[in-house]
Amino acid sequence: MEQIASDVDQMFDRLLAVPADPRARLYEAMRHAAIGGGKRLRPLLVRAAADLFLVDRVPALRVGVAIECIHVYRLIHDDMPCMDDDDLRRGRPTVHKAYDEATAVLAGDSLHALAFEVLADAETHADPFVRVELSAELAKASGPAGMAGGQMMDLVADGAEFDLGAVTRLQQLKTGALIGFCLEAGAILGRVPPEGRRLIRAYARDIGLAFQIADDLLDVEGAADITGKAVGKDAAQGKATFVSLLGPDRARQQAQILVDQAIGHLAGFGEEAALLRAIARYVVERDR
Amino acid sequence: MEQIASDVDQMFDRLLAVPADPRARLYEAMRHAAIGGGKRLRPLLVRAAADLFLVDRVPALRVGVAIECIHVYRLIHDDMPCMDDDDLRRGRPTVHKAYDEATAVLAGDSLHALAFEVLADAETHADPFVRVELSAELAKASGPAGMAGGQMMDLVADGAEFDLGAVTRLQQLKTGALIGFCLEAGAILGRVPPEGRRLIRAYARDIGLAFQIADDLLDVEGAADITGKAVGKDAAQGKATFVSLLGPDRARQQAQILVDQAIGHLAGFGEEAALLRAIARYVVERDR
Repeated sequence: MEQIASDVDQMFDRLLAVPADPRARLYEAMRHAAIGGGKRLRPLLVRAAADLFLVDRVPALRVGVAIECIHVYRLIHDDMPCMDDDDLRRGRPTVHKAYDEATAVLAGDSLHALAFEVLADAETHADPFVRVELSAELAKASGPAGMAGGQMMDLVADGAEFDLGAVTRLQQLKTGALIGFCLEAGAILGRVPPEGRRLIRAYARDIGLAFQIADDLLDVEGAADITGKAVGKDAAQGKATFVSLLGPDRARQQAQILVDQAIGHLAGFGEEAALLRAIARYVVERDR
Repeated sequence: MEQIASDVDQMFDRLLAVPADPRARLYEAMRHAAIGGGKRLRPLLVRAAADLFLVDRVPALRVGVAIECIHVYRLIHDDMPCMDDDDLRRGRPTVHKAYDEATAVLAGDSLHALAFEVLADAETHADPFVRVELSAELAKASGPAGMAGGQMMDLVADGAEFDLGAVTRLQQLKTGALIGFCLEAGAILGRVPPEGRRLIRAYARDIGLAFQIADDLLDVEGAADITGKAVGKDAAQGKATFVSLLGPDRARQQAQILVDQAIGHLAGFGEEAALLRAIARYVVERDR
């Protein structure tokens, strides 16, 4: 994880070189959000799926950075006063606090565009068909049929009664779609036939949900100084989560079942699936 | 223009079919901003450049809609209270007024993703290399090296003394880069060799600047009931514009020189450049 985090930081440092003109403040805000923080779980997932399908490290890193651009843009916009209104992210002031709200909007939008610029570049893969398929799938996973749609459901949920089915659907869009793309990207880079893609999608669905349950548990039981963000927010807002609907014990059991199931999908693979198995376990054991 | 506007509306209507789930509000907000308004100048530019290079109408329309997704997302975010704080757009309430700020953030982000989904789809062009080049160029034109960077310069400009060179550079990024992409997209779709691309880029630079000067003139001399947006805002904010720096007469002359120059680049073409010539004249003669 440390190696991936360092590779991602280095690539952001290159991509976000600060220009000597009035745009400097924009690049500085992007750097503030993108460099030196976060678990880099998504780039790690791309790398793990790329390992499974024997894909080189550079393409996997570039796709990981593109996804991280999307993930970070979402955090910047999410933290704004009109959304979650958070002052703290990864233990540091959020972008609209360190800069201002207008800069936060533009820094998010800029990272959003950068994601597609990175994917479309010939350095990501020699085959344009692979690059365009990556772009198509990232757009779907992050747009209204994916992440942004899930966030809208989350906004609407504040005033509605959500049951377990609705919360599952919400999380599959809000966090699951992008996590699913991380893993599918490994298969796209490897030009893997349908059966391999079916397996990696099944793995993705299970760990995506396990990841969200673990996040809900951390919001209840985690420590702000370790998670680097405010805790207890869901309960304070009266939000339906896996923990509020199932209770912490059953939620923990459910997450464990999903992790075992995810590892089960990898039964036909050998050592090349080692990283995916380790990640599945990490998803529920992490403390931040 | 009416034909293009109707084609664009029809395609948005298909792309933004409202789902029967809590995401409905998101799609409605996107429809509110994207359908039934605006001059659709950008899709028209794509079509005009596609005409020049004998490209079919469907690919040109799809690229035009993708660019309109970017243009509309920028308007939604720009109108927000933390940015320009506008209540009125195209004579109707802005998205954050008709809905709320959080929905406006998400509707903008969703249209942003949709742009790249539309470009990457095989219906846009059979050749994946063409699709991925369109994605790469749109990402650059709209990101921190293009439109978003220009907006940042605009934010910084509020507190700085900008001369004519700086305002020109600002506008080349803020509006010129996306207008340039509209025209270059016609050349990409037509797989046109470098000389043709050089000419269309020169035309794009000239009309992009003419368009912005005309916009500044409309802000000073236009009527809110025709332009569909508030007027006199630049002067009220003490913003440096082409009109404040040159005066209205010299600004008008400059716009006319640029238009003549733009039409001059098309001298080697015949009837297939008719639409581009007409657009160049329209850019400075329009009243909204």
